[in-house]
Order: sequence, then C-alpha cells, then structure tokens
Amino acid sequence: MKRIDWNALDEGERAAVLQRPVQAVSDAVRSGVAAIFDAVVADGDAALRACTRQFDGVMLDDFEVDVVEFDAARASVSAEVQAAIDEAAGRIEAFHRAGIAAPYEVETAPGLRCERVQRPIARVGLYVPAGSAPLPSTALMLTIPARLAGCIEIILCTPPRKDGTADPAVLLAARQAPGVRVFKLGGAQAIAAMAVGTERVPRCDKLFGPGNGWVDEAKRQALQRPGGIAIDMPAGPSEVLVIADAGADPAFVASDLLSQAEHGPDSQVLLVSDSDALLDAVAVEVDAQLAQLPRAAIATQALSASRLVWVRDITQAIEVSDAYAPEHLILAVREPRAWLERVHNAGSIFLGDWTPEALGDYCSGSNHVLPTGGAARAWSGLSVASFQKAITVQDATRAGIAAAGPCAATLAHAEGLQAHARAVELRLERAA
Amino acid sequence: MKRIDWNALDEGERAAVLQRPVQAVSDAVRSGVAAIFDAVVADGDAALRACTRQFDGVMLDDFEVDVVEFDAARASVSAEVQAAIDEAAGRIEAFHRAGIAAPYEVETAPGLRCERVQRPIARVGLYVPAGSAPLPSTALMLTIPARLAGCIEIILCTPPRKDGTADPAVLLAARQAPGVRVFKLGGAQAIAAMAVGTERVPRCDKLFGPGNGWVDEAKRQALQRPGGIAIDMPAGPSEVLVIADAGADPAFVASDLLSQAEHGPDSQVLLVSDSDALLDAVAVEVDAQLAQLPRAAIATQALSASRLVWVRDITQAIEVSDAYAPEHLILAVREPRAWLERVHNAGSIFLGDWTPEALGDYCSGSNHVLPTGGAARAWSGLSVASFQKAITVQDATRAGIAAAGPCAATLAHAEGLQAHARAVELRLERAA
Ligand SMILES: [Zn+2]
Ligand SMILES: [Zn+2]
Repeated sequence: MKRIDWNALDEGERAAVLQRPVQAVSDAVRSGVAAIFDAVVADGDAALRACTRQFDGVMLDDFEVDVVEFDAARASVSAEVQAAIDEAAGRIEAFHRAGIAAPYEVETAPGLRCERVQRPIARVGLYVPAGSAPLPSTALMLTIPARLAGCIEIILCTPPRKDGTADPAVLLAARQAPGVRVFKLGGAQAIAAMAVGTERVPRCDKLFGPGNGWVDEAKRQALQRPGGIAIDMPAGPSEVLVIADAGADPAFVASDLLSQAEHGPDSQVLLVSDSDALLDAVAVEVDAQLAQLPRAAIATQALSASRLVWVRDITQAIEVSDAYAPEHLILAVREPRAWLERVHNAGSIFLGDWTPEALGDYCSGSNHVLPTGGAARAWSGLSVASFQKAITVQDATRAGIAAAGPCAATLAHAEGLQAHARAVELRLERAA
Repeated sequence: MKRIDWNALDEGERAAVLQRPVQAVSDAVRSGVAAIFDAVVADGDAALRACTRQFDGVMLDDFEVDVVEFDAARASVSAEVQAAIDEAAGRIEAFHRAGIAAPYEVETAPGLRCERVQRPIARVGLYVPAGSAPLPSTALMLTIPARLAGCIEIILCTPPRKDGTADPAVLLAARQAPGVRVFKLGGAQAIAAMAVGTERVPRCDKLFGPGNGWVDEAKRQALQRPGGIAIDMPAGPSEVLVIADAGADPAFVASDLLSQAEHGPDSQVLLVSDSDALLDAVAVEVDAQLAQLPRAAIATQALSASRLVWVRDITQAIEVSDAYAPEHLILAVREPRAWLERVHNAGSIFLGDWTPEALGDYCSGSNHVLPTGGAARAWSGLSVASFQKAITVQDATRAGIAAAGPCAATLAHAEGLQAHARAVELRLERAA
C-alpha cells in the first residue's frame, strides 16, 4: 500500500492523491446502452427477451416472478438467513420511519397560509444487481423506504440466474414491500424497461439502486428522456476513508480496509492517520488477514491503488477527508463524537472502534445506497424522502390577498409582467 | 382556445391532449454547449470574455460585481420596489426557515445509535436569467434558502446588460445572501464557469436556477461530468393547470391563464372544468383582458396551444391534473381544501378564488423554482433541503456490536463477503 506524507506535498500533489480514477463512459457503453433503449422502445418485451438471452444466457418467456417462485424462495433460504433478513429489516424500518418528514404550515401574512406536504412517488423502479454475489441487503435498502413512503407500485428488477430463477434471498428481502412486482431483468435492459415501459413492465417515475457501468449509463440516459424521470444518484465504485489515531486497533482497521477492498477491484480505500506506528501496524495486519480471504485476489487489486496518508493531527485528517468526500467515513479515533461536527462531506459516518462499516452495509438501520465519487459534496444517501416529492400549497382569503397582493403587484410591474399584476389587482379591487 | 370533451376521448386521445411539445435538444445546442465547456476548461476567463462578447454583445474585463456597482444599484431602485423586495424576502424566509429539517436519532439496538444530520452544500452556483425582463424574484428564491442552509460560498451569475452592468433590482435581491458574489455571465458560459471553475469563478458543487434551452442543456452536461456535481432539477417551459367549477369567477380564471401565457410563447395553459358555462365565460374574458396587455403577442401565441377541457366532475378534473402533473395547479373550486388530499402530482397548489399564481411567483413565501414538463411526478420545488445534504451516522458500543453484529455477519456470509463478516466477528470476539 502506498504511504504518503501529506505535509510533504504541494497543492497539486495533494489533489492528485485524492483524485479518483476517472470513470469516463466509453463510447461503446454509451452507444450500446442507447441501442438497448431504442430496441426496448421499438420492440418492448421481445427486445427484453433478446437482451436477456444475449447478456444473461437464459431464455425467459415471462420475466415476472410468480407466486410459485416466491414460495419456493421462502422454502429454500435457511432459517438463519431468514431471521437475519427480518432482524435487519426491523432496524432499517425503525430508523427510516423516524426520519419521515412531517407536513408543516406557516401563516406568512394575516389570511395567507403556506404549507408543504409530502406525496409518494407513485411508481418506483428498483434495481438489485447480482454482481459477484446476490445482494439481498440492497433489496432491503430499496423496498423498505419505498413501502414507508407509500409508493403505489413498486417494481424491482434483478438479473436471472442461469437456471432462469431469481436469487431466493433477494426475493425474500424484496417482500419487505408486500405488493412488490419482481422482474428477472438485469443490466441496461432492466433500466430501459422501467424507464420507457413495455407490455409487461410498467413505466416508472423514478429509478433507484446501484449497478455496474452499463446500469449507471442507462440511468443517466433515462434521466435525459422527456417526461421528467428521476434517478436516485450517480453510481460509482464503493469507497471508504478511515481516520485512525494511535489508540486505534490495527486489526480492526485492517479488517475494515479489507472489507471495502473485497467489494471489487475498483474499490477505493484510504487510511489517514497521525500515527506512523499505527500505519505500520495496519500494513502488517492487512497482509496477515488478506491471506485468509476467499476474495483475496479482488482485494489485492483494490489495495494496490489504496493510500496510507500520514497527517499532522486529526484536524488535518478531517480536512483531507472533507476534500475527498468519501462514501463511507470511519472515525477510529478517541472521542469520535467530538470530531463529528467538523465533518462536512461524507455519505455515512461510523464512529469509534466498535462500528465497522459492515454494520451499516447490513443492519445498523441506515441506508447503504450512498453517494460515491465525490458526490457526497452535494448528494445524500437514500431515505424515505427519496421516494416522495414535496408539494407546496398556498391559501389566501380576501384578507390574505389584501395583505400580500400589493407587494406581488409591485414586483410584477418591476419585472414587466403586467398580466401577473392584473391577476392580483383584479382580486384586490373585488376584495375591497 | 381549443375546447375538448374529455369523456368523448379514448385513452390514446387523452394522452395526446396532455402531451407536452417534446423539448428535444437540437444537435446544434448540444454541440454548441459542449464547445463552450471545452473552451472554458481550456481558456478559463479568456473564454468567458469571448463568449460574453459574442452572446451578450459586451466586452467585460472583470465579470464580478464590485461594491461600487452594488451601491449604485441600491441608489437606482425605487423605494417602492425596494420595500416590495424586503417584504417578499421576509415571507420567503419565514416559510423556508420553518421547513428546515432537524437532525434526529434512533437507538436501533441497545448500544447502537443511528442518526441523520444535515450539512450545507459548501459552494452553490445560482443562475438568474434576464429573459425578456430582469427577474429579481428569482434571485430571492435562490439566495434566501442558500443563506438559510448555511452555504459557505454563494455564487450568482446573471447576464450583463448592454452597458456592462447587472440589473440593479437583481443585485438588490441577491444581497439577501449578504456574502453573495455576483458575476455578470449569462447562458451556457455561466453554467460552464460554475461547473468547472476558472481563475475568478469558483467551481461549485451544485447548480440552481431556471434558464433557456442552452442553460438547461449546460446544466445537464455539468451533471454528466465526473466529481458528482448536482443540479436542482430539469428545466422547461412554465405551466399552469386551473380546475374551476361553476362558482369560479371567470375574470379571475382568465387573468390566471393570461399571467401564465405571458411568460413565453411556449408556456403551457390548461383549464379543466365541469361547467360549460364557466368555460364559455372564461373564453370571453380572456379575449377582453388580452386586448389590454402589453405582452399580448406572446400570450396569444401561448394561448393558441392552450386547452379547455370539459370533464364530468371535479373528481375527474383531478385525475386529469394528476395525469398531467402541472408545475402550478389552481383549485378555483368551492371547498378547495376538501380536494387537496386527492392531488398527487403538482409542483405548487393555489387554493380557492383569492390565491392567484402570481402570489406564489413573488411573495406568498413558497419557492417559485418548481418542476415542469411532468417532473412533478418525481421532483420537488426548491427548499432549504435542496441546499443541504444529509449524512447518516452510526455509533455502536461493545454492547451495540454484540447486539447487531451477528445479524450483519450472517448476511455478509450469505452474500459471499467474508471480509465483511470478519470485520464484525473480530470485534465480537474482542467485545465478549
Ligand atoms: Zn461494504
Ligand atoms: Zn407566473
């Protein structure tokens, strides 16, 4: 792992250390995704069948998971995993439910009420990738807030396995939204189907969930289409930045770096510390633990691009972290709560020695769909609000228009919008 | 204005009535915007000077508004308009401040706390178009929530006038964020400058504000760049849908349709009613009021594409509105509050006879930057939250990892992520 002395770097070198590899979309992916959209628009389900045969190597006549397959899934998942899914779901629900925004209102002038109310997004499209392993946890993170928001139709796409079935644990987790409709569709064709609609797959208003480069590009192209389809956030490789002081446990820190590294060869891993001894000890621990991991090859690749950064103190460590804006930030420092206020840019924060990132991935209760690639500067992770939109309401009586109308008319005249002024003045005349 | 009997239409014809003209981005605009981005990346301020000379017809050495120009602006705006700006600002602030999300926390297991906190987006870029008239109201709608969110740097771009100055009323309104930096830059070059940064214009984390097709396309291209720049929402022509019953005042309704129509020739105007007599009376009133408007030519063009829709009852009127998902919805019906719950898709709603849309444009207190083009199905208008991001935090003690850890380890094994499981199990061993 590359060791860096932050204070020996000039501004340009510092920027280079924090630079992520540019995830430029290749022309092949861009035009490949565009071709899939064109095919799905033109041929609907027939195009989906052709894509599924080509990319997933399986012929499916009907993509939708039926009641027989749901029942079979329940029978095939171990009781231990079923219990873990239910336990995780309980905590995810408790945390997300507590964050639901309440409507509010203000009387901004006598007789003039202003309000904001929330409404569910009617039709949401969720994507659960298969990746190198099935991801029931992602199904939980998407279906639970969608249900809490009150979405009317919840559509979930996940790639079929070679035998034409969906992963049973994903199906079990998806049922956290009891009315969910699951379609065995993967990649760009799944996104295209939910974005434009086909004979069987409903057109959705907003698309959610992580995925590979094809899925990400498909979500971007969906966002460009007329009609105002929304997406949750741009996707990219997963990241962790760990800030550790001299008192941190090197074995814990190493295990957190490795759990990030095993996500994929493009995972981003940074360790920032004011202790040279800690950096040394973590490097030794990483090697020792790596030897025991089944996914060692993937983790080794990710670690080859990782950085160990030596800084003057924890204040400077937080400056480095804020400049990087990590998806996950672990504060393995003494008195972590004292530093929390200083952090401005991060997707989710893990405080102290006893809160591994893996806890947030599965069952602390927070959402694991988080901004990557520096997007934490401006984007938030998923919450119930991501599945709702807010509507403002204003309600004036005669007294209300009398109070606020003259101000509106003055500004309308100043902006040269006489019809706006007239709409107010006409009412002022009648209200008098 | 085109009269339509909703119940005489089949499903396809209904969809066609609610279809907006497709705002396809021309290849010329797309490549023109891309060329401006390339020039700004390569040449910074020099490119901005060249664009400003070409598109605004003015040579500017320094784009930033200085203290002399701010003072001159204050001196040149009438006391009446200054007072109206202050009054509007007061109501906008009161409403937006009341909607600020509070942090919250939940103990999701004994010894495991989960929280969500808000942070301002550090650098925000605001765009205030000049359009056919200067828009100080838009400056209010952008700067007030940015200030309330606590944004550290607030950058505002607005096109220069032919004499090289900015509109004084816009400058006055912009000062609602006292530390705002205003740059006299318009169009795609303003967006490109804020998205990539130049010698003088800081690179921003999120871009806000309405604009023409070039500005909208520039915001889309900014969103595609690596680094996770965010934008507020897709932009499009402004829209109103009015639902009026037999008791509505035809003069009021006509004035609301006309104030929407004067925004631009591409403005969308729909009136839905269960009363033939009301539709007749409004048509007469529109003609009468139109004759007196300075912007009659623009309004006439917009009205030529407008639709008067006759429906069976108000329930059906709301179905039509929800299918259209208007930016602005006026409920000019008896007991409007009784119908509010049924509305699912709208940017902002105006209740009853005494709440013209113009009130919300200027000074009811709600924000006038709202989703258009059907985006109200999934997007919200601006609020303080648009200028913040949320960070989740989890904090486990030894007891917390003992309580929640086994669940995480089980799911990690189920997903084939052994390093995740190890990070938890290592702590479970030590915590025991
Ligand atoms: Zn992870
Ligand atoms: Zn208006």
